[in-house]
Amino acid sequence: MKTSLSYGMVGGSLNAFIGGVHREAIAFDRRAGLAAGCFSRDAEQNAAAGAYLELDDARVYADFHTMAEQEAARPDGIDFAVIVTPNYKHYEAAKAFLQNGINVVCEKPLCFEIGEAEELKRLAAEKNLLFGVTYAYSGYSLMKFARQLIGEGKIGEIINVNAEYLQEWLIDELGHGEDSNTRLLSGWRTDPAYAGISNCTGDIGTHIEHTVAYLTGLKIKQLSAKVHKFEHALDLHANILVEYENGASGVYACSQVCAGYQNALAVRIFGTQGAIEWQQENPDILKVTYKGQPPQFFARGTGSITGRAATLKRIPSGHPEGYHIAFANLYKTYIGALLKKANNQPLTPEDLDFPNAEDGLDGVKFLHAVIGSGENGSRWEEVGG
Amino acid sequence: MKTSLSYGMVGGSLNAFIGGVHREAIAFDRRAGLAAGCFSRDAEQNAAAGAYLELDDARVYADFHTMAEQEAARPDGIDFAVIVTPNYKHYEAAKAFLQNGINVVCEKPLCFEIGEAEELKRLAAEKNLLFGVTYAYSGYSLMKFARQLIGEGKIGEIINVNAEYLQEWLIDELGHGEDSNTRLLSGWRTDPAYAGISNCTGDIGTHIEHTVAYLTGLKIKQLSAKVHKFEHALDLHANILVEYENGASGVYACSQVCAGYQNALAVRIFGTQGAIEWQQENPDILKVTYKGQPPQFFARGTGSITGRAATLKRIPSGHPEGYHIAFANLYKTYIGALLKKANNQPLTPEDLDFPNAEDGLDGVKFLHAVIGSGENGSRWEEVGG
Amino acid sequence: MKTSLSYGMVGGSLNAFIGGVHREAIAFDRRAGLAAGCFSRDAEQNAAAGAYLELDDARVYADFHTMAEQEAARPDGIDFAVIVTPNYKHYEAAKAFLQNGINVVCEKPLCFEIGEAEELKRLAAEKNLLFGVTYAYSGYSLMKFARQLIGEGKIGEIINVNAEYLQEWLIDELGHGEDSNTRLLSGWRTDPAYAGISNCTGDIGTHIEHTVAYLTGLKIKQLSAKVHKFEHALDLHANILVEYENGASGVYACSQVCAGYQNALAVRIFGTQGAIEWQQENPDILKVTYKGQPPQFFARGTGSITGRAATLKRIPSGHPEGYHIAFANLYKTYIGALLKKANNQPLTPEDLDFPNAEDGLDGVKFLHAVIGSGENGSRWEEVGG
Amino acid sequence: MKTSLSYGMVGGSLNAFIGGVHREAIAFDRRAGLAAGCFSRDAEQNAAAGAYLELDDARVYADFHTMAEQEAARPDGIDFAVIVTPNYKHYEAAKAFLQNGINVVCEKPLCFEIGEAEELKRLAAEKNLLFGVTYAYSGYSLMKFARQLIGEGKIGEIINVNAEYLQEWLIDELGHGEDSNTRLLSGWRTDPAYAGISNCTGDIGTHIEHTVAYLTGLKIKQLSAKVHKFEHALDLHANILVEYENGASGVYACSQVCAGYQNALAVRIFGTQGAIEWQQENPDILKVTYKGQPPQFFARGTGSITGRAATLKRIPSGHPEGYHIAFANLYKTYIGALLKKANNQPLTPEDLDFPNAEDGLDGVKFLHAVIGSGENGSRWEEVGG
Repeated sequence: MKTSLSYGMVGGSLNAFIGGVHREAIAFDRRAGLAAGCFSRDAEQNAAAGAYLELDDARVYADFHTMAEQEAARPDGIDFAVIVTPNYKHYEAAKAFLQNGINVVCEKPLCFEIGEAEELKRLAAEKNLLFGVTYAYSGYSLMKFARQLIGEGKIGEIINVNAEYLQEWLIDELGHGEDSNTRLLSGWRTDPAYAGISNCTGDIGTHIEHTVAYLTGLKIKQLSAKVHKFEHALDLHANILVEYENGASGVYACSQVCAGYQNALAVRIFGTQGAIEWQQENPDILKVTYKGQPPQFFARGTGSITGRAATLKRIPSGHPEGYHIAFANLYKTYIGALLKKANNQPLTPEDLDFPNAEDGLDGVKFLHAVIGSGENGSRWEEVGG
Repeated sequence: MKTSLSYGMVGGSLNAFIGGVHREAIAFDRRAGLAAGCFSRDAEQNAAAGAYLELDDARVYADFHTMAEQEAARPDGIDFAVIVTPNYKHYEAAKAFLQNGINVVCEKPLCFEIGEAEELKRLAAEKNLLFGVTYAYSGYSLMKFARQLIGEGKIGEIINVNAEYLQEWLIDELGHGEDSNTRLLSGWRTDPAYAGISNCTGDIGTHIEHTVAYLTGLKIKQLSAKVHKFEHALDLHANILVEYENGASGVYACSQVCAGYQNALAVRIFGTQGAIEWQQENPDILKVTYKGQPPQFFARGTGSITGRAATLKRIPSGHPEGYHIAFANLYKTYIGALLKKANNQPLTPEDLDFPNAEDGLDGVKFLHAVIGSGENGSRWEEVGG
Repeated sequence: MKTSLSYGMVGGSLNAFIGGVHREAIAFDRRAGLAAGCFSRDAEQNAAAGAYLELDDARVYADFHTMAEQEAARPDGIDFAVIVTPNYKHYEAAKAFLQNGINVVCEKPLCFEIGEAEELKRLAAEKNLLFGVTYAYSGYSLMKFARQLIGEGKIGEIINVNAEYLQEWLIDELGHGEDSNTRLLSGWRTDPAYAGISNCTGDIGTHIEHTVAYLTGLKIKQLSAKVHKFEHALDLHANILVEYENGASGVYACSQVCAGYQNALAVRIFGTQGAIEWQQENPDILKVTYKGQPPQFFARGTGSITGRAATLKRIPSGHPEGYHIAFANLYKTYIGALLKKANNQPLTPEDLDFPNAEDGLDGVKFLHAVIGSGENGSRWEEVGG
Repeated sequence: MKTSLSYGMVGGSLNAFIGGVHREAIAFDRRAGLAAGCFSRDAEQNAAAGAYLELDDARVYADFHTMAEQEAARPDGIDFAVIVTPNYKHYEAAKAFLQNGINVVCEKPLCFEIGEAEELKRLAAEKNLLFGVTYAYSGYSLMKFARQLIGEGKIGEIINVNAEYLQEWLIDELGHGEDSNTRLLSGWRTDPAYAGISNCTGDIGTHIEHTVAYLTGLKIKQLSAKVHKFEHALDLHANILVEYENGASGVYACSQVCAGYQNALAVRIFGTQGAIEWQQENPDILKVTYKGQPPQFFARGTGSITGRAATLKRIPSGHPEGYHIAFANLYKTYIGALLKKANNQPLTPEDLDFPNAEDGLDGVKFLHAVIGSGENGSRWEEVGG
């Protein structure tokens, strides 16, 4: 029985954010290892990534067509390809791997044209391949729980949806139009050649669409949109009225120019028997209101969370899933200090910014003082210096 | 120049939670690899972990003393040991590695007795080794920023501290004392043979102590504590008045029996010029109030966060650091489905709970409808089924 | 010099909620006393209210036409009439008092028809009378402060508005249509004979409209609405896209069937330089974000609150101000203006800072546009200038 | 049958905040009217208040002794006296009215000395008079609901209490000691001649004490306090460990120098079966957690709120209730009880649901224990039964 897989990556050079997230996420479960890659059109960057990721040089490819063909030909070729290029290459890359019989996971938006998406879908079906699209927010465990509650009819028939995805990071583009200085902010994202027909709606509006679809199963029948480009080539903001096939209606707003919002995907699903609400920036809490009862706040990982969501529990409740990062930061510092030491480099106070034996000692002293005080009529106890 | 390290782990078999967190955290930065281990006193569990973690059999040790000696003797021996055993083995294990000249990272509380802690501290100094203690909450990047603001005097001289760490997971132990059924809940944690003189204060009270010390640099002069065991051998709750060496005072509360709280470490530092507040369950937000001004809420990763905290930024602001986990869940499902498929096992709908090409297609349709509506006077646009 | 006034009330019998709120709000500042009333068409209820409120029997009237005439004829006749009847009597009653030369304060929505509202506005102007409409939410002191910040350009040019007013109290009407049992819940509010063309939008949607207008000064150019009656005669829910005359756009949602929401008016105003956000259920806090800075939370009554808002401070910060205070602020302004007028003192724009007939008119226009769009396939509907 | 009462006020001149709150609160229910007063030692201010409040000149008194005697002698004399002077006059004034057979409502803290409080309690009992103390926070309707849930055993036996009352308004006094400029900030409150032995604990710490007692019925057995004067004559901050007679423990903190807090009374009551939490700055929400279930947030005025709290509902849910209402509820009860008594009707425990002299006494005891502990090395101090 096969117990592990190998994968390849297209895009995701070392200075790209999302490629690293994909690799780290796959590493969590140790069931698939990186074996091949085509990380950048820039040969130097491509090689640097291959080396850092400890790949066999022969499997670091200059172009993804070659990669698809050669990996397909190898007996130990990759099981699936992860595509994290800028949007305009998604279609071509996904198609190359599918045509060579390799499973594909692709970043969203899947591609530019409806016909392209249909082709990819058809190809995957014909070849009997699994095709994944990383609408990652549906991976939060409470999204599974919310979907389960809605699917069980706990909030009745859905009558209304309010959903939004607000960011502020492009607010400095307002009023600057095609000015090349400010274009540096949004980079390829507002350039139609690389981003297609949309910037904001494609990048984050599609997350609203998928999150609502995932939770409710509702299909959109029609919509009406106010789209704002603020003198740029592509959209920076859109307000959208939606009508679903069941007759319910919804309002969506997506923006990259709303001050005070970092990455605020928020969905509220209203039904005849209750409501369910979730915010991506606080993903471990689900607000559930049943008609006639006070709102309840379900916390990830508690005994109240059942079903598929419970199977995805990794750490105890109350630990933000980013608890790992706090640990990672601690180890990053510690290992960095060890390396400096090994190389006879001087250590600064910042290099030593990790809890040490002195801190450990202080904890033991504290502990003894507390228990000692408690066992002696709560008297005041010296802790020591 | 040395660019990477290897480490060994003591404790952390496959069914232990915290060992996995350590390994995943170290993996993030790819600068140290697991090379040896002594994961369990149970030979079978020890072997299983070694196999899963792809270690050389020769470096999976039955006891940590042997491990310390043999690793010290190898030319490619581990650079540091990570100790994640139950508390009662911390001291002995840490000592073994230090004595053999190997750097140590140890879980908290460091050990049971003050003399033991002093010995470990001294040993590390004598051998010129780096000793880390995983008070991991100080690893959150906003903790670095809070410490920086306090250190710069932004909130003036500290006059008061309110800090607490509340959990509810042992509430069912109330009123059951030494009943073996309920003891199953807390396991070794309320057994003095394995936990030493304290359960709750040792496990989570020491985190309060370290977090406040890390942020403020204040040393505790004396304290008075009310400690509650609720008929158990060790404490389940403590309320503590604290006096610091600078004359300021503080109140700490730690509990494992407070309904409604999962893992609620919360600290509030009050100074003559302002206040700083942080909650571990919402770690990406820091509340800062300067005297005479409205409270401000700093978000991790934004341009307002400077200094060391900025150097630890891994993902854009607004993405809970657990964003990786959402991705990991998606890949866990996807890879699980590929494996089932490779092994000719039937795929259930739950196995296919990842966004697929159909979802990708829907996103493209949505996008075209939005942009189409926007470009046509915001008319209602069919999205298609 | 005249230092106090008398007023009369139409509607507001002892079992009516809003009449009492008006009387209590007026009483706060002791500058106007109740002297006459026509509280109910039911003679017994009318008499009971008169007795409870300690009125002279001769000034408790069976109908408001008689009341208007006789009060106008008395040397000590009322200075103003407060109209708190069900909506369908607003117009007739307001007109009666205006025609008899008596100032009027009227509940919202002002009346059913645009022509009626225009007539009232004209009548007040012709007779040189002050006409107030109780959009009481603009009476909260932080609404004054928000308006001041926006007016000073602190958040730049407005580019987008998100506003909603959600309630849950009619959720049990869903699916019951014209069933008389469930109609008891909404009473006259979903009966066109008493409520006119709208229930939900008229009752609470108009508050969204006024609040945004009050804060921003923006005029709505056009809007598109999805309106849901859920088998009732009148609307229970509406989602609305809005375009303002300056080109900005907005999304409004009003509902009486959203589980988990009591009286949740929430407005978010986004500009090129920042954003301002406020929620009626937590009215003493104003969220202000300046571009590139962390969000700040201003608290009512603190030293950070300046200008007109500061002049309306009644109790120290941290004491929830209460709905009554918003009403009292409105009346304070209105009565102050009447007194200045009676004493031939010039009226400044600040003296006239209460919702007037023009505001009432805009509400009716808004209302018609919403309903009109809803009945015409949610087409774009002009609102008019 | 008597249907309304008259009252007199001592203190509460026009520039005093709290006197107005009392008068407005009484006015809400129209069952008692102001008929006499001694508003200020300053003759001009006294006369101005009498005129503004439309009193008969003969009933505006220069001193409260005369007022007590003359009102007692009048056939239409006041039914009760409201004492809102600075603290140092509470005792003398309350005694004067009691001795003359007049019921009394007095601000808190009731007086300076335990013996004084005992005397007032005894006097009221001997004369068969009703004595009220305005711990107004217990007047919030959700406090009634919380008390009901606790009394019904819904959260089991109480094991721990966390309560605090934080303000920031005196932070500028830090480091200035007896400087007369900064003393202007706190005025008489930090002058022992006018405030007695305590500033902060007397002013707000007593509210913590009463609120916890009101909710739980727990008596404090002993406590330990750290009290900070920051070079002033009286306290500005205190941290307190508490032990109740049932063996449970608690932590209290009160402060007027904590940046970022306006008037933040917050109480958390933890029991063996759940927890209840409330914050005065957001008084219309009650957090209730039953063991093993998600936290629920009850909103004032909804159908989920039953019992006495429901009988005090004045306005629909979602409308912030306001500080005034808490006062009005207290007076409603007090006046209702007076009326029943005047009409020889039996008084139920619910009729007497207002803070009385016994409560006032407990506050003074509490206060002495806190200050005593603080002045004696924070030793454990008996509070007495």
